[in-house]
Amino acid sequence: MNQITLIAVPGVPHIRPGDALAQLLLQAVAAAGLALQPGDVLAIAQKVVSKAEGRFVCLADIRPGPEAERVAAATGKDPRLVEVILRESQEISRLRQGVLIVRHRLGFVSANAGVDRSNVPQTDDERVLLLPVDPDASAVAIREYILRETGVAVGVVITDSHGRPFRLGTVGVALGVAGLPALWDRRGEPDLYGYTLQHTEVGLADEVAAAAGLLMGQAAEGTPVVIVRGLQFPAGEGRAADLIRSQALDLYR
Amino acid sequence: MNQITLIAVPGVPHIRPGDALAQLLLQAVAAAGLALQPGDVLAIAQKVVSKAEGRFVCLADIRPGPEAERVAAATGKDPRLVEVILRESQEISRLRQGVLIVRHRLGFVSANAGVDRSNVPQTDDERVLLLPVDPDASAVAIREYILRETGVAVGVVITDSHGRPFRLGTVGVALGVAGLPALWDRRGEPDLYGYTLQHTEVGLADEVAAAAGLLMGQAAEGTPVVIVRGLQFPAGEGRAADLIRSQALDLYR
Repeated sequence: MNQITLIAVPGVPHIRPGDALAQLLLQAVAAAGLALQPGDVLAIAQKVVSKAEGRFVCLADIRPGPEAERVAAATGKDPRLVEVILRESQEISRLRQGVLIVRHRLGFVSANAGVDRSNVPQTDDERVLLLPVDPDASAVAIREYILRETGVAVGVVITDSHGRPFRLGTVGVALGVAGLPALWDRRGEPDLYGYTLQHTEVGLADEVAAAAGLLMGQAAEGTPVVIVRGLQFPAGEGRAADLIRSQALDLYR
Repeated sequence: MNQITLIAVPGVPHIRPGDALAQLLLQAVAAAGLALQPGDVLAIAQKVVSKAEGRFVCLADIRPGPEAERVAAATGKDPRLVEVILRESQEISRLRQGVLIVRHRLGFVSANAGVDRSNVPQTDDERVLLLPVDPDASAVAIREYILRETGVAVGVVITDSHGRPFRLGTVGVALGVAGLPALWDRRGEPDLYGYTLQHTEVGLADEVAAAAGLLMGQAAEGTPVVIVRGLQFPAGEGRAADLIRSQALDLYR
C-alpha cells in the first residue's frame, strides 16, 4: 500500500552553540531504536540548526541605526530587535503597528526575518536567535555527515513556520533542502484522462515541511526532528532558493 | 513513539455525477482491508467531491458577457471559460496574459477560481469542473455519513492544490473541513523555556492537506483519498473559511 510514515524522533537534547547537530541527531535516532533508511527525508526545525550554529545575538550589544529607530517607532518594536531584523533583510515588505514583514536576505518573505525570541533560554532575556547563515548548505552538511557515518543517503529539509498572505495560520515551509527536489516539476505529465497537465510544479519540500509541522508543534512538546519515510520523489538536488518566487514572478499582487 | 501515518486509499473508482461518494470511499477502504479508526482524518481531493456533485459545465452552453470578453482578450483565455471563472469569483485579483487570479466566491484567492479542465473525461472536450458548491458542508456530510455507517468519528479535509504569492510550486490546502479545527490557536502556550508564544496560530487543516498532497500526486497515479492516522489535535469544529485572510487582515501586501 502506498503510504508515508512521519516519525517524531524523541530525545533530541537541547542544542547549544557549537553542538555537533548531525551527530546528536544520529544518537537520538539510534537511542530511539530507529534506523535511517535510504530514501528517508529528515525534516529538521530551523531553530536547532540556528542554535548549533550559534546564531544568537544579544540585544544589549546592538546599537540601532536611524532606520531601525524609525521602523521601531512605526511598529512599536524594540529598536535593537528591529536593527537585527533589518540586518537580516533585503527590504521591508510591510510595516505597521506590531507588524514587520520583510524579504529576508535569503529571498523569502516572512515576519521579523525569522528573528525569534521564543525557545531561547530565559536565562538571557536579551538574546534572540537568527536563521541559519545558509540553510541549504546546512542541509547539505547534515546529509553528507549522515551518509559518511551510516552509508545511508537521506534527504534533508530544514523547516520553519511561516504565515501567508491570503490564508490565516502558519504552515511549515522549507528553508533548506538537500538530497531531493525542492520543486517537483510535473508539467507535461498526463492526467487521469491523458490531458497534459499545466502549471503543476509541486512545492515538494514545502509539503514535506508542512507534513512534519503536524508533529513538530510549536510549543513545549516541540520535537525538532521528524523522519519522513516512504515518500516517493524523483532524484534531484534541490535548494530552498528554488521555492522563492521573485517579485517579478509574483502573479498574485 | 509519536508518529503519523498517511495511507493512500487504493481502488477509489472514477467518480461520476450523482455517485454516493462517501459510500464509495467506505467501500474502497474496506476493499483495501483498512478500517477507519476514531481520530483518523480523511483527506479527500476536491475533484472527486466536485464530480460527485455534478459540478461540470459545458462550455458550449456558456455565452460570455462583455467583462468575460474583455478579460479573455487580456489573458488569452477562452471567453466561455473566463465567463465560468468570473461567475465563480468575487473579484479579479490579478490579470495578465495567461494568468487570471481571482478571489473565489468562497473567499480564497487562487488561479482560475479552481475551474479545471484536467481530469475531466476527454469524451467531452468542452466540459470543465467547478469547485464544490460548499466544501465545508460537503465535508460535514461525508463525516456524518461515515459516523452513521461505521460509528467512527473521523475528521474530513477536502483538499486542493494552490500556488502561492511569494513561493513557487503548488501545495495542498484545505477547501473544506469537518471534525477538526482548521486553525489551531496555540497562542498563549508556553514554549520550551516558558515564554508565552506569540502569533502561533497553526494552519492545521492546511498542513493536513499539504501532507496528503505528498501521496495524492497530481497526475496519472492520482489517489484522491488519504487517511491521516495518529494526528493529535484538539476537539473543535473548524471550517475552511476560518483559514481565509480577509484583505483587511492581509499584512503581506
